[in-house]
Amino acid sequence: MSASARERSDRERPIGVFDSGVGGLTVLHELLVHLPREDFLYLGDTARFPYGERSGAELRQFSVAIARVLAERGAKLLVVACNSATAAALPTLRSHLHEREDPIEVVGVVGPEARTAVQQTRNGRIGLLATPATVECDAYGDAVRATGEWLELVSVACPDLAPIIQAGFPFDEGVVETVRGYCGPLLSAAVDTVILGCTHYGLVAPMLQRMLGSDVTLITSGRAVARVVERALAARNLSSRRGHEGRYRFLCTGDVEAFAAVGTRFLQMPLGEVERVDVATAASGAGVLTDGALR
Amino acid sequence: MSASARERSDRERPIGVFDSGVGGLTVLHELLVHLPREDFLYLGDTARFPYGERSGAELRQFSVAIARVLAERGAKLLVVACNSATAAALPTLRSHLHEREDPIEVVGVVGPEARTAVQQTRNGRIGLLATPATVECDAYGDAVRATGEWLELVSVACPDLAPIIQAGFPFDEGVVETVRGYCGPLLSAAVDTVILGCTHYGLVAPMLQRMLGSDVTLITSGRAVARVVERALAARNLSSRRGHEGRYRFLCTGDVEAFAAVGTRFLQMPLGEVERVDVATAASGAGVLTDGALR
Repeated sequence: MSASARERSDRERPIGVFDSGVGGLTVLHELLVHLPREDFLYLGDTARFPYGERSGAELRQFSVAIARVLAERGAKLLVVACNSATAAALPTLRSHLHEREDPIEVVGVVGPEARTAVQQTRNGRIGLLATPATVECDAYGDAVRATGEWLELVSVACPDLAPIIQAGFPFDEGVVETVRGYCGPLLSAAVDTVILGCTHYGLVAPMLQRMLGSDVTLITSGRAVARVVERALAARNLSSRRGHEGRYRFLCTGDVEAFAAVGTRFLQMPLGEVERVDVATAASGAGVLTDGALR
Repeated sequence: MSASARERSDRERPIGVFDSGVGGLTVLHELLVHLPREDFLYLGDTARFPYGERSGAELRQFSVAIARVLAERGAKLLVVACNSATAAALPTLRSHLHEREDPIEVVGVVGPEARTAVQQTRNGRIGLLATPATVECDAYGDAVRATGEWLELVSVACPDLAPIIQAGFPFDEGVVETVRGYCGPLLSAAVDTVILGCTHYGLVAPMLQRMLGSDVTLITSGRAVARVVERALAARNLSSRRGHEGRYRFLCTGDVEAFAAVGTRFLQMPLGEVERVDVATAASGAGVLTDGALR
């Protein structure tokens, strides 16, 4: 293949996206809307869902194995659409994927969201709603401090929120009351910007906006990540130049029908077919567009 | 009641919203998010749905009767959350409701949307997706011309779109292809702003954004109407001053269970109880906060 043909085919490779399950589909939703010409390959590790209770070592091992599958299927860039995996494994993934013969950039959900919140706040008080694991590891605190700005971060651990969002639709008054409880500390602290620090939380954004008031800016990872991905592709001359919409496909490690049934609500678009994949052994399969070896 | 007590109680009266069915719940959704402290009373005239094929005279008669019910239940402002009713009946409703002893302001969905589109466009080419009836009566064309700006409006009548959105979820490839067909003329005309001229269309906004490209600005009536309502209340000293979220309640003229089942998808929030109301005879009921007489 000539150098220019190789460059052209690189641009049309898919963007890999992974999450512990269906929650990352809210991130994919924003990517599909903001980068309509790109192909996407999404992997939900539903067999090992949820990630919230896993150790850092486990999450690094899972993430590297998943990245290998997506790289073998030709991913030109990797989006970690899971807060727990981003917090635990991003540096490990970067060192693996940057050192390849054809390096692959990795974008996580924490940094883009934290930086967007810092840009948005006017009173310097930012709220965070996240899982206990994410609050515990203080990844958002690190990301906010890394901007060098003097800001207050008010974190609220929401143990019940992702499970009730995944389980229930239509939402009932119980969901409203649970959400209201988590908003209390943010209202007391008079934050003007709130980070939704879990991919599930976008589904209750209207409720949150009502409870927090229309002057509060909600930051979801999807939009922030879409902008970072757009810039990362442009800077590496990897943006698709096709003149029509790209395709998107789904892999999951658990039950494909359960994935499709719940996934549609998170994606808000037709899901199409879902392929079952075994992450642990798939790494030995043949590479499609890359050399398949992930150091 | 003293003058100041009357003023205070006027501020806490509900905002009335009506539509031919559940479509207007997308407008109510935005009102709930942007005006969280207001009470709302929504009436869906599901017994006479759809309005798209009705004559202007019928729509004026229905609209005036519904306005009477909502005024009797204390509405301090009326939102016509239906494009067909706005196009056919807004001047009639205004002349009725402005001439009352306690005048009630009326906000329709066409004007706010058209003016927002005019503000947004950079290349002067605006697209419109709407029902055949709305395209035929050229209400959006009138509203765009009323701004005095020289702009091109490319209208696409979408006979199939509202019915397939109301009928189907999750959306399948048939919906995608139907939406794609309606986008064709807008892509050919290189519009940079597209008005979603029917309350149902917001539910396929992600699909439309993908097909039209991320540089095209989609205008939904909900947000535009919410801003007009906010200003109208503030200008009349009618904004609620309560320190907590308002309530919202539902009336419909047809089957309450069908309304609740379909409505949740359009509202994206818990719906609560729905009360059946007979618009034709309810006008004889006792007024709640107003004198009940609608001239």
